[in-house]
Amino acid sequence: MPSDRYARRAMSSDKAWGGRFDADLDATAARFSASVDTDKRLALEDIAGSLAHARMLASRAVISAADLADIERGLAEIRAEIEAGTFEWDAAREDVHMNIEAALTAKVGDAGARLHTGRSRNDQVATDLRLFARESCLRTARRIDALESVLVERAREHVDTLLPGYTHLQRAQPIRLAHHLHAWVEMLDRDAARLRDAARRMNESPLGSGALAGTTFPLDREMTARELGFDRPAANSLDATADRDFLVESAAALATCAIHLSRFGEELVLWSSQEFGFVEMSDAFATGSSMMPQKKNPDIAELIRGKSARVVGDLVTLLVLQKGLPLAYNRDLQEDKPPLFDAFDTVESSLAVMTGMMATVRFRADRMAAALREGFVTATEVADWLVTRGVPFREAHAVAGRLVRIALERGSDLVSLPLDVFRREHASFDDSIYVALDPAVAVERRDLLGAPARARVLAALDAAEARLDARRPGIGAADGQGRA
Amino acid sequence: MPSDRYARRAMSSDKAWGGRFDADLDATAARFSASVDTDKRLALEDIAGSLAHARMLASRAVISAADLADIERGLAEIRAEIEAGTFEWDAAREDVHMNIEAALTAKVGDAGARLHTGRSRNDQVATDLRLFARESCLRTARRIDALESVLVERAREHVDTLLPGYTHLQRAQPIRLAHHLHAWVEMLDRDAARLRDAARRMNESPLGSGALAGTTFPLDREMTARELGFDRPAANSLDATADRDFLVESAAALATCAIHLSRFGEELVLWSSQEFGFVEMSDAFATGSSMMPQKKNPDIAELIRGKSARVVGDLVTLLVLQKGLPLAYNRDLQEDKPPLFDAFDTVESSLAVMTGMMATVRFRADRMAAALREGFVTATEVADWLVTRGVPFREAHAVAGRLVRIALERGSDLVSLPLDVFRREHASFDDSIYVALDPAVAVERRDLLGAPARARVLAALDAAEARLDARRPGIGAADGQGRA
Amino acid sequence: MPSDRYARRAMSSDKAWGGRFDADLDATAARFSASVDTDKRLALEDIAGSLAHARMLASRAVISAADLADIERGLAEIRAEIEAGTFEWDAAREDVHMNIEAALTAKVGDAGARLHTGRSRNDQVATDLRLFARESCLRTARRIDALESVLVERAREHVDTLLPGYTHLQRAQPIRLAHHLHAWVEMLDRDAARLRDAARRMNESPLGSGALAGTTFPLDREMTARELGFDRPAANSLDATADRDFLVESAAALATCAIHLSRFGEELVLWSSQEFGFVEMSDAFATGSSMMPQKKNPDIAELIRGKSARVVGDLVTLLVLQKGLPLAYNRDLQEDKPPLFDAFDTVESSLAVMTGMMATVRFRADRMAAALREGFVTATEVADWLVTRGVPFREAHAVAGRLVRIALERGSDLVSLPLDVFRREHASFDDSIYVALDPAVAVERRDLLGAPARARVLAALDAAEARLDARRPGIGAADGQGRA
Amino acid sequence: MPSDRYARRAMSSDKAWGGRFDADLDATAARFSASVDTDKRLALEDIAGSLAHARMLASRAVISAADLADIERGLAEIRAEIEAGTFEWDAAREDVHMNIEAALTAKVGDAGARLHTGRSRNDQVATDLRLFARESCLRTARRIDALESVLVERAREHVDTLLPGYTHLQRAQPIRLAHHLHAWVEMLDRDAARLRDAARRMNESPLGSGALAGTTFPLDREMTARELGFDRPAANSLDATADRDFLVESAAALATCAIHLSRFGEELVLWSSQEFGFVEMSDAFATGSSMMPQKKNPDIAELIRGKSARVVGDLVTLLVLQKGLPLAYNRDLQEDKPPLFDAFDTVESSLAVMTGMMATVRFRADRMAAALREGFVTATEVADWLVTRGVPFREAHAVAGRLVRIALERGSDLVSLPLDVFRREHASFDDSIYVALDPAVAVERRDLLGAPARARVLAALDAAEARLDARRPGIGAADGQGRA
Repeated sequence: MPSDRYARRAMSSDKAWGGRFDADLDATAARFSASVDTDKRLALEDIAGSLAHARMLASRAVISAADLADIERGLAEIRAEIEAGTFEWDAAREDVHMNIEAALTAKVGDAGARLHTGRSRNDQVATDLRLFARESCLRTARRIDALESVLVERAREHVDTLLPGYTHLQRAQPIRLAHHLHAWVEMLDRDAARLRDAARRMNESPLGSGALAGTTFPLDREMTARELGFDRPAANSLDATADRDFLVESAAALATCAIHLSRFGEELVLWSSQEFGFVEMSDAFATGSSMMPQKKNPDIAELIRGKSARVVGDLVTLLVLQKGLPLAYNRDLQEDKPPLFDAFDTVESSLAVMTGMMATVRFRADRMAAALREGFVTATEVADWLVTRGVPFREAHAVAGRLVRIALERGSDLVSLPLDVFRREHASFDDSIYVALDPAVAVERRDLLGAPARARVLAALDAAEARLDARRPGIGAADGQGRA
Repeated sequence: MPSDRYARRAMSSDKAWGGRFDADLDATAARFSASVDTDKRLALEDIAGSLAHARMLASRAVISAADLADIERGLAEIRAEIEAGTFEWDAAREDVHMNIEAALTAKVGDAGARLHTGRSRNDQVATDLRLFARESCLRTARRIDALESVLVERAREHVDTLLPGYTHLQRAQPIRLAHHLHAWVEMLDRDAARLRDAARRMNESPLGSGALAGTTFPLDREMTARELGFDRPAANSLDATADRDFLVESAAALATCAIHLSRFGEELVLWSSQEFGFVEMSDAFATGSSMMPQKKNPDIAELIRGKSARVVGDLVTLLVLQKGLPLAYNRDLQEDKPPLFDAFDTVESSLAVMTGMMATVRFRADRMAAALREGFVTATEVADWLVTRGVPFREAHAVAGRLVRIALERGSDLVSLPLDVFRREHASFDDSIYVALDPAVAVERRDLLGAPARARVLAALDAAEARLDARRPGIGAADGQGRA
Repeated sequence: MPSDRYARRAMSSDKAWGGRFDADLDATAARFSASVDTDKRLALEDIAGSLAHARMLASRAVISAADLADIERGLAEIRAEIEAGTFEWDAAREDVHMNIEAALTAKVGDAGARLHTGRSRNDQVATDLRLFARESCLRTARRIDALESVLVERAREHVDTLLPGYTHLQRAQPIRLAHHLHAWVEMLDRDAARLRDAARRMNESPLGSGALAGTTFPLDREMTARELGFDRPAANSLDATADRDFLVESAAALATCAIHLSRFGEELVLWSSQEFGFVEMSDAFATGSSMMPQKKNPDIAELIRGKSARVVGDLVTLLVLQKGLPLAYNRDLQEDKPPLFDAFDTVESSLAVMTGMMATVRFRADRMAAALREGFVTATEVADWLVTRGVPFREAHAVAGRLVRIALERGSDLVSLPLDVFRREHASFDDSIYVALDPAVAVERRDLLGAPARARVLAALDAAEARLDARRPGIGAADGQGRA
Repeated sequence: MPSDRYARRAMSSDKAWGGRFDADLDATAARFSASVDTDKRLALEDIAGSLAHARMLASRAVISAADLADIERGLAEIRAEIEAGTFEWDAAREDVHMNIEAALTAKVGDAGARLHTGRSRNDQVATDLRLFARESCLRTARRIDALESVLVERAREHVDTLLPGYTHLQRAQPIRLAHHLHAWVEMLDRDAARLRDAARRMNESPLGSGALAGTTFPLDREMTARELGFDRPAANSLDATADRDFLVESAAALATCAIHLSRFGEELVLWSSQEFGFVEMSDAFATGSSMMPQKKNPDIAELIRGKSARVVGDLVTLLVLQKGLPLAYNRDLQEDKPPLFDAFDTVESSLAVMTGMMATVRFRADRMAAALREGFVTATEVADWLVTRGVPFREAHAVAGRLVRIALERGSDLVSLPLDVFRREHASFDDSIYVALDPAVAVERRDLLGAPARARVLAALDAAEARLDARRPGIGAADGQGRA
């Protein structure tokens, strides 16, 4: 929390700079600019980057083999401490980079001080961020795969469960539940693809870019790139240190996924209502009320819907952050981490609970069937029936509309109207119209790629499953499993 | 961080609900929906609200005096523990409310269980949020006052420091530094006013609204409102529990302030550049480079500029969160707290460091004076000179433009052009044009309310100071100092 | 639409500047920077500002009475042409200001050229914008008043219509429809108040601020302020020309209102569904489907919900636009107009159709009553009944939860459970519990300020109506009716 | 503009629906929901989609060859009228689809009424949008290519122009102007790649998806997909009609590009200032002031910077629009068009003027060289010099920092310090330090991939040019030139 005073002095040593400065940083300013509370999350990426840099420096004889051995030993110890939770983070040392370097130098002396040769925090943090974002994109994509798998599985259970499809939240036409669930699979699949595209596009190594303009040391940028699983070194040092478009791309893919999940969440909230009653959440994914004993609330679905707002906010932050910044690195960029971490955390946890919830939700085929019997969901069939008898579509549509109105006035449904009522509206009607009005028949007649006829839905699920299988570990290379 | 498994069971007791439930909440879902890590920040507000509620229940004989005494004692202990940092928060108890209530019941038994009579978490959290947001708005407004005071003080030091005013980042006309600094004072003052308006508008008590529809207990809503410093009880229970427009209003005021600060930060970054050189940051508010030993970077100004992006993101989150939610309370609203807290923290800390930085920055009057001598900042005077001799403005402007061009071609400035050059462009010129070209004269001739003539600037500073004085504690009522 | 070529030359004369320039603006650049297509919407404000400026110039003898007469005549003609739609806008003249000035000069010669004396487009456009935004805020607030009035009226018709109140979209407790509608009134009322606050805060005159630093002419800033209905001249010329926080404040108030309307729209979409069936839209505010003859879609409610997204986008644009701009005016600010106009248009038209829709919607009290009979909406009464017999709330809540579960297992509702079932869960139950379970009784027992008891709801509606009456024209001063 | 009255009746015929409706749409509501003013921009895509649909219907014998001939003739006439600007758009006919269908039916009678067989406006508009967005993505990508080409060309001219590279807007290290310009090329190249990815991912045909669930007619979805240049039919009809993630992806790519351009614009504004003076805009891409005759403002660069705000707003609108919408189509989606069109228009026109501006801007190598001589841009060389003599980096950095401080105190630069001053700070210094301090030497020693050594920069430019050449029309397939 912000403090009232800006006068106290603090933190004199341990800065990565200082030669030309008289006075220490103001304590409030130090707190304001310290980032270690946030960026320590990049510790393992930072160590991986440092190891690659050190090995390359040794291979180019910029540091000695003994120095490298010291650095490797020191960093291994630090990594172990971090993983064990025993590493002591010190806010006075500004950021994750200085904390680790100071610890290293404390452990191994001069060799630690030589590690930073030919490197700046600017290329260092750009490397850490790319490693983090790349792995996070791929991991999130695999979480999407897991949700898709559950949806495909539940869809297979419900190939023969019919329900009304809705447009404008009005009952529209009968569909299969499997067809409906498959729609979410398709949306999610594009989300995963966007994340994998982002991971691929950002996969260039900034190491060797220095603060902005490279360095005078004879670095082997190809080697560090290879070592860290990058496809190649970044082609321009100013760009590599000063641009964060890859974070915007990641966050945009995450926001799109979050919006998809918000829609899915909304639908589950609707379907959980007493009015719809299409699903019953497992007790493991619903909560009650502190005041109203009867309540079973779809809180998890609501939270998934609500948390999408965070991710949109994170994306906006990343865009606004960079607006109007000239080249090259500006300190504003330090603020890229909170929205980045939050966007990944929010989407990953939303995916995890959505997966659990969809694995355990009970679909109420009885309620769906009841809803199908009301609402004139086969009125389109009346129009189509006429069209196949040569009536122009617009005219057929009007006839069907009038029949709906007659049924509404009678408090009836279409199938209960006698044939002479049909005939009064159009002479060509005969008994076969009643067959057309059966939802099961109507669904099956929608026999097109992408439509709800049984065979079409099964084919779509097969295709989705094959796509998921092709991405499973083992085949891995496709999503970069083996990397870093 | 999200976990891979959603199967483990957890946390059976300690829920505020449960009677109708068979199974416990899934562990991942429990983590996903628990908010105590965030909302514990509302602990003191929650206790204040509970005390007011308990006292009112006792005054209406819904609970006994003995129960009230137990509750008061228990809550006082809990508050002391929280302030001492010894209170044990338990994520399994979902949120701040249940943590405190469970601790209370553990301390004082049945009386604790009776505290929640006639209350729901829905009106409880709405009350906590309003208390928090109200105080935060007022506190942030006072921080703005503090920054304004520093700016007024620095402006008084620099009433006679002249510099070029810029439009389009081009030198435009000469102004006083005090006039320039006063512009920031005016902007900030509106920011503070918006925050105070927000505090005033939200100052209605939700307590007694229940989950959505009040309660059957004979509560005294006026009493709890008074006790907590609210102006009145909220007039509709659905609205009071389900709307968060007051958070949007707060965040919008904060975002506007953050954008003002981003502009101020940008200007300080510009003025710190070697090219401008108009300011030198105190060493206490600047940092160096890990690679480049000569660097003195305006990091704090850059971070202030960059952090504005967070606040814009927070505002967007609060808007998106509520988009399309039907009445009344939906669980999505739980997500209102992270952006709220972040927006206040970011703006408050930005104001604190800006205040420190402006108190200590060195203005380089020499560099400003040098810049004034170049750039034709008194070309407008040439046009104005002609207009006062009856030349229509558009023609006068064109004459001055041609004279600038001649000077540019000669590598000269206007004041060095001989009179016959002036006369060739317009016959009416005489020697007095050279007086008009003196920046100090030009500034002083701008003798209008709001313009940079000396007396006008002093009057503006006096007015700003009087406004600030009127808001100082003691007079306080104006900003609600005495409240709660 | 953008063009491929940037080479063609265009538009040499008619620029407000030009003396120092050799070459004309590139044609693509001219199109890119011209704003007249958008800003001509400020024409009447621009003329009002020019008239005030001209009268003041004459009163200060900067221009002659004859010049003033010419200018007044010319501007009156131009205004008439604009209102008649016969004025010829010329994109080559950049913007609304230059179009009008050029037309004026064409009509009245030199006097027209003298109008711009002591003025810059920077203070001119800032004035136009404030006039426009002020009137638009007040007009939109009056539109909100109109919607509130319709809601109060409809609420009065439905004081005795009961329905389930919802939380988490689950039936929660019984309320009155009038109470529910009044919740929207309260939300909207704050929206109107925010718009009026914005209008008041921005009501300072920029005229006389020049390009950034005032002017050397002896202007009477008080006079132009008065003439245009401003409360006072703006206190700092840099601030007055370079800041657009007043547009952000307007847009934030509009976005909050739009989000409220999105929530209202969502609810109407839900209530229009066959599942809820709580409302039937008038045919005048619903549409059908080009494919499905039975559909009656709540398109207008959907569009109101969807259009909120535009206003959030507009607000973001206005914030991002100003991020990081140094003082004073920068050309970026030209882009403030499209989001400003769009935000007002969108909210005003949404309010207009919402008002019409709410005036004509049919509420289905029968469907609401049916919904009340299901869903255990009086389970809270069971817990409250026990609490009034001394059972601690948490225990009472658990008992009620178990009773709900028993009823669910029996496929029954609470009122149909025999007394011995109640007694098995808690010995103190007696026959009076059945009275407590009646929704009408339950509503009436919620007899608190802001709660749904009949008298409370009527009092709330009276208060809302009194508030609206106090704002009606005639009393007017309150919202600035008389201005400009 | 919104109207005051919602009572008037209007527009009875010409609706695509109506059979079940008693009354016409309210006039205000009709205006509110009509979209033809916006969506008429999709007219050519709509006609292309209708032609493909009609040909397919004929191939499947759903309509006759004679009907097809009529439809083809009618649509050809309508296209010609639209291209000629003579087509009469009628707002009473709601949208582009109904306008064209009504015109077709007027021309060719029944055949026109049969065109809509097996189609809904839901799959129709989804098809139009994908065609529009696909072509717009590819066209914008080609515009980026054009800007990149200009930048490469200008970079080649300036391979030997040195300037200070900046971090934190402080002079940091010497670089080549070509290296700097190449950084923008790299950023833009990723923007183009994102747009091409988006075009590829969205390239699936919705036609045949009907309103939500396909249709009962025996459509050939593969045929219409092929005919319209789509890679395949969309795999799920609900998804194809109800999701707009492809618009979010396009807008996110555009917003990222716009933010890049805002940064580039900012830099050009900076460089145009008298303080930097690194560029002089061509008169064709700069403007003057209506008040200040000396001004030459970088308006175009400012507008490019400012217009980025629109695109961020557009992206936000597209995200918010879809938040929380259940399946399938909801009318909210109509609002996808204004932000979509605006985002493309804004980015395309910004790219066009940026291309023109960069083709004609004059780089001031003299001013860049002057800036290089100040600011200690080779202080890093001092540290590096020591490191190559075995001094640990952190110590070397501190020595260099002290030397900078000494020079600052003397008002000198580093190269002017005598050797004994160097030696007092570190004994190992010798005369070769003066060579290291030469900026040209320092740049050339940065001889790494991506760094500013001459050969490296030339290689980077060659690579960029080869990449651009590979995308030129003729090779085309790569960016889908041949499509549609």
